[in-house]
Amino acid sequence: MDLEVLNGLLRPKSVAVVGASDTPGKIGYTVVRSLLESKYEGPIYPINPKGGTIQGLQAYTSVLEVPGEIDAAAVVVPAKLVPQVATECGQKGVKGLIVIASGFSEVGLHDLEDQVVTIAHEYGMRVLGPNIVGILSNSDKCNASFAPFLPLAGSAALVSQSGALLIAMDASTYIRRVGFDKMISIGNMSDVDFADLIEWLDQDASTECVSLYIEGIRDGRRFMETARKAGKPIVALKSGVSAHGAAAAASHTGSLAGAQKVYDAAFGQAGVVMASDLNNLFDRTLALSLQPPLTGDNLLILTNGGGVGVLATDSAERYGLPLRFAPKDVQVELKKHMPEFGSAKNPVDLTGMAGRDWYQDSTQYAYGHSWVDGLVVLYCETAMTDPQNIAEGIKAAVDASGVKGKPIVVSFVGGERSEAAMRWLVENGIPAYNEPDTAVNAMAALREYARNKAKASNGFTKLTDVDEAKARAIIAQVRAAGDRNVTEMESKMVFEAYGLPVVTSRQATTEDEAAEMANAMGYPIVMKILSPDILHKSDAGGVKVGLESEAEIREAFRTIMANAKAYNANADIHGVVVQKMAPWGTEVILGSVNDATFGPTLMFGLGGIFVEVLKDVTFRVAPVGVEETLSMLSDINGAPILKGVRGEAPRDTKALADVLSRYSQMICDLADEIQESDANPMIVYEEGAGACIVDARIILKPRKS
Amino acid sequence: MDLEVLNGLLRPKSVAVVGASDTPGKIGYTVVRSLLESKYEGPIYPINPKGGTIQGLQAYTSVLEVPGEIDAAAVVVPAKLVPQVATECGQKGVKGLIVIASGFSEVGLHDLEDQVVTIAHEYGMRVLGPNIVGILSNSDKCNASFAPFLPLAGSAALVSQSGALLIAMDASTYIRRVGFDKMISIGNMSDVDFADLIEWLDQDASTECVSLYIEGIRDGRRFMETARKAGKPIVALKSGVSAHGAAAAASHTGSLAGAQKVYDAAFGQAGVVMASDLNNLFDRTLALSLQPPLTGDNLLILTNGGGVGVLATDSAERYGLPLRFAPKDVQVELKKHMPEFGSAKNPVDLTGMAGRDWYQDSTQYAYGHSWVDGLVVLYCETAMTDPQNIAEGIKAAVDASGVKGKPIVVSFVGGERSEAAMRWLVENGIPAYNEPDTAVNAMAALREYARNKAKASNGFTKLTDVDEAKARAIIAQVRAAGDRNVTEMESKMVFEAYGLPVVTSRQATTEDEAAEMANAMGYPIVMKILSPDILHKSDAGGVKVGLESEAEIREAFRTIMANAKAYNANADIHGVVVQKMAPWGTEVILGSVNDATFGPTLMFGLGGIFVEVLKDVTFRVAPVGVEETLSMLSDINGAPILKGVRGEAPRDTKALADVLSRYSQMICDLADEIQESDANPMIVYEEGAGACIVDARIILKPRKS
Repeated sequence: MDLEVLNGLLRPKSVAVVGASDTPGKIGYTVVRSLLESKYEGPIYPINPKGGTIQGLQAYTSVLEVPGEIDAAAVVVPAKLVPQVATECGQKGVKGLIVIASGFSEVGLHDLEDQVVTIAHEYGMRVLGPNIVGILSNSDKCNASFAPFLPLAGSAALVSQSGALLIAMDASTYIRRVGFDKMISIGNMSDVDFADLIEWLDQDASTECVSLYIEGIRDGRRFMETARKAGKPIVALKSGVSAHGAAAAASHTGSLAGAQKVYDAAFGQAGVVMASDLNNLFDRTLALSLQPPLTGDNLLILTNGGGVGVLATDSAERYGLPLRFAPKDVQVELKKHMPEFGSAKNPVDLTGMAGRDWYQDSTQYAYGHSWVDGLVVLYCETAMTDPQNIAEGIKAAVDASGVKGKPIVVSFVGGERSEAAMRWLVENGIPAYNEPDTAVNAMAALREYARNKAKASNGFTKLTDVDEAKARAIIAQVRAAGDRNVTEMESKMVFEAYGLPVVTSRQATTEDEAAEMANAMGYPIVMKILSPDILHKSDAGGVKVGLESEAEIREAFRTIMANAKAYNANADIHGVVVQKMAPWGTEVILGSVNDATFGPTLMFGLGGIFVEVLKDVTFRVAPVGVEETLSMLSDINGAPILKGVRGEAPRDTKALADVLSRYSQMICDLADEIQESDANPMIVYEEGAGACIVDARIILKPRKS
Repeated sequence: MDLEVLNGLLRPKSVAVVGASDTPGKIGYTVVRSLLESKYEGPIYPINPKGGTIQGLQAYTSVLEVPGEIDAAAVVVPAKLVPQVATECGQKGVKGLIVIASGFSEVGLHDLEDQVVTIAHEYGMRVLGPNIVGILSNSDKCNASFAPFLPLAGSAALVSQSGALLIAMDASTYIRRVGFDKMISIGNMSDVDFADLIEWLDQDASTECVSLYIEGIRDGRRFMETARKAGKPIVALKSGVSAHGAAAAASHTGSLAGAQKVYDAAFGQAGVVMASDLNNLFDRTLALSLQPPLTGDNLLILTNGGGVGVLATDSAERYGLPLRFAPKDVQVELKKHMPEFGSAKNPVDLTGMAGRDWYQDSTQYAYGHSWVDGLVVLYCETAMTDPQNIAEGIKAAVDASGVKGKPIVVSFVGGERSEAAMRWLVENGIPAYNEPDTAVNAMAALREYARNKAKASNGFTKLTDVDEAKARAIIAQVRAAGDRNVTEMESKMVFEAYGLPVVTSRQATTEDEAAEMANAMGYPIVMKILSPDILHKSDAGGVKVGLESEAEIREAFRTIMANAKAYNANADIHGVVVQKMAPWGTEVILGSVNDATFGPTLMFGLGGIFVEVLKDVTFRVAPVGVEETLSMLSDINGAPILKGVRGEAPRDTKALADVLSRYSQMICDLADEIQESDANPMIVYEEGAGACIVDARIILKPRKS
């Protein structure tokens, strides 16, 4: 990251508005007005061929005419003029271009957009946009955009891929009382992308939480890497989760990998907290920008109403934070701050009689207690108590406790008085919400952040006992034979080159060869047709299982060959696979897709109906270390199967996790070749007995023409 | 329903406040003040032993002293005095008691509470409460409660089991802009319960939607029956969903039936729409109180911003209303109301340039088109457009269309101007929300309402080819033998009495008998130990399957007997079950619980891991007709299994649905006897080949001591 250049772009000390106008209604007018109204303290240089003055400012005919230095140029001229402007800006020594102008890749003019970036880079400039609203920063008193005003001040930063949404959210901050220091419109992301902004905002002193509205990411790997390194919480609303899945997939894994599942996996791995909708993005941003992560599972809830207490209990379970009872000493102490009919369990019910004192005393005690990892304080507005009083009691308790690094969130249900008290709380650093569910969800975001962050540090160690060259040689052979499919046998050989536990399998081209191999392997034997032109082997009558003798082998060979020819007379038949029949165990499926955004991505699921009917699978962007692959095993609904059900012994999850990590390395090493792959089924045995891949499939990337 | 009495209680023409006071801070003071401040137009009679005047009103020492008639008496005296007050009210001819006083069953004094109800009923009075806030009604200008003011006026009615929440929600209506005509606190529900209020509100001219906050229901059946009959939408927030599951269950079904699953089933069957949290209750209430149900699946979305359009698309999928493209003619027409780069697909993107005219024209066209079942209009606040203008355009379009009975909801994302425009829309009957997700969720509520209502009318026809007497005789025999378990054989006989397809099974007490039966049935045979003291037959070595000959039968008999004695020397052994081995098919499980709230409740799921690991089961309150049992078959995640996977033929779902309906009749007829039951497994065959119950289990209700 070139900090100086990005600072120039995003916290400019001087701004030129290229295409500035004195005509209200024009964007070139609005941007200048925005800068003036935001009381921007650096020089503003309107650029207009006519010169003169614009909105009382000295205008220049070109940036080259400007006497002082220019950090950032907001460009609002027609698209076709932008390359010329970029060149002049480069010559002038401008650091960054805020290309508000539209009419680039979003209308198909990719070359024009590329041209602007090329010019900019020649001069060491960075480009934000094009097709954006601009940038807004409270701490810099800088509204270099056509949004009408700066957002409510706060410590979050929004990066939005939708300009319309940014403008609407900007206005909305004053209603929702969620403060932002910065709002950055990212538009077509021709140059500066989410990763750049995450990196830059992470070092920005005015930002405590990075909030993203994402429609699509260009370079998923870079995004993940930057997010992983970030020291500040990142919360993302990813839209378009339902739009995907249109591409026809050739493998099982391919058909199961929707954009949402891969995005969820990638964001989790990168330590990014997800938001489910716009309200949730605001609500979670508020908590993440004001409170520390929740690093343990002991959530305590204080309330003055049983009803909201029960609702919060339901929510806690819903969001993965089921309540536990506090230890006896905590209960005994809390019992002192409530009437006889109150409850010191969890939720702690101070009863409707609770006023400021009870709230303050119990909050101070609970917040200060080491058992409590996080505190949710609920309040139902009553006629007898003053919400502002309660709010002040809560704040005083937090201050008096001397505790740092422990999250607290609040929910007041009530009318205008409660709203005012909650505004006061938020201004004093305590997130407050108008219903318990939202408060608990915000606390869950603080927990997810802590969990994801821990996960993001899980290391992958590259294995050295793999033979990448051999794997590549096998693939090269397939490529050399024209654009044909990789056969089962070839796929297995690639897997074997990576030390994956493939069941003993050999290729036989004649009946005699098959018999000889079977005799050498021992019975029972499975035999399968081997042809790049027959992918659905069972449908073609090309599979025989449980063969017990040489006679059966010979008969099966003949039958399979006859069936295959009948199924597809033109098929290029390589012979059969003769394979030792794997003993019975638990069927699982491993697989991979080469995701357009995130690259090689690993899938795991249980086999059979679990994958076919229930689609009970989980993804991780590869490569992944064993700690992470172990977590995949418990992600799926069918996880208890691996632990052993109906009295069965637990499966060899350690071996399974190792295989998954190894597989993830294979698909990364060979990412330029493998588009999709499956090990389906793989059979997993009892603890210590390992696992065994029975069938294998690799689908190569299409050749570049 | 005694309409006159309930009218007297809930829309009183005159109110006595028994325990009225002139001392601020006392509830007896607050209730009188509430009535005065709500500008209640009927006479208010403060009752206080001291007489005199209270807050300027003539007070009386007893209701018996009051000169005029009294419809309702709000009772705020200490609990122990309430029976006396009730008696006097009865003598006076009061219609209903609003027992605000607490200190009854909620502190264990059940008898005192019962006594009040008994007295009331003697005099034909109804009792609301005790332990309540009171009643509030805008249309009656009546705040007979200690809540400080009437809610924002509107057409919904809230019934709340939590007083604190009612007061908080009351205040909250002014912030959330969701209007209520009535708020009724239901407290301990000693007499008037949810069902009474649903029935009464359904005929109340000022109520369009009934909104419930429920912690628990007493009589689930009556609740369902009343809700089913209601002509107005009912939306319920049920809290305490995570609290259940404590009771130890003896059957499979028992262990799977959590309160939430049964409540969800019951509410769905009764046509009640569920709310997930407090915000959702308000949001859904708003839509249901202002808009008609959504009777089809064709939702069209209009927007001025791609971002909110994509978010709404995601939400539509999330809430079970996936978007479809509108027909060509609709697209062609809509295309006229947008610039070239707009989109007439779904969402229809009018682009950020859309002002009032485009919104109005496209809304009017879309709302009027027969393909469109419901319309969601989204708007992102822009600097160039005026939200109020857009709002007026939408409203004008709806009015001009002349269309009735088609729902429309709106979402404006923006600041104060958008908020004001949305308030205006709501005041003009169009629900408006500050983010697209909430708007789409509200539309989903209108769809759920239509679907649930259709479902609620599904009839159950009582079968006559059942032998209830025989079933009862078998159970009586078990009862007569002491408090022992019902054996498999006895359970099967009960099932058979109800015409359920039990596999041919007979009881053999000797080896010879077993051999003879097996020879008569034909092989293969399954043999199982039969003892009320051995419930886990496999664990006891008491099951032998696949017996193919008389010799095997004889050996199995001896082994089973020996194993059983070794397992439990004191077991009362009835012999063995000799059973024809059912051919292979798809395993399912049927079962029942006698739910504490809803009574006999039917469960269905796929067998094996589906039930054991995935808990993939569905419930219905019994009895249920075939249309509804068919819907159970598609409720489960494993539903595709029944349709046939991996090339298998579809299962006989018709037979399965018939069996489920028949089973539901059995558990209703014998509800006084059967606590839980399982048919596990039942094997279902191909279409036309029916189903067959292989194992059966009935757990009787504990005897009343």
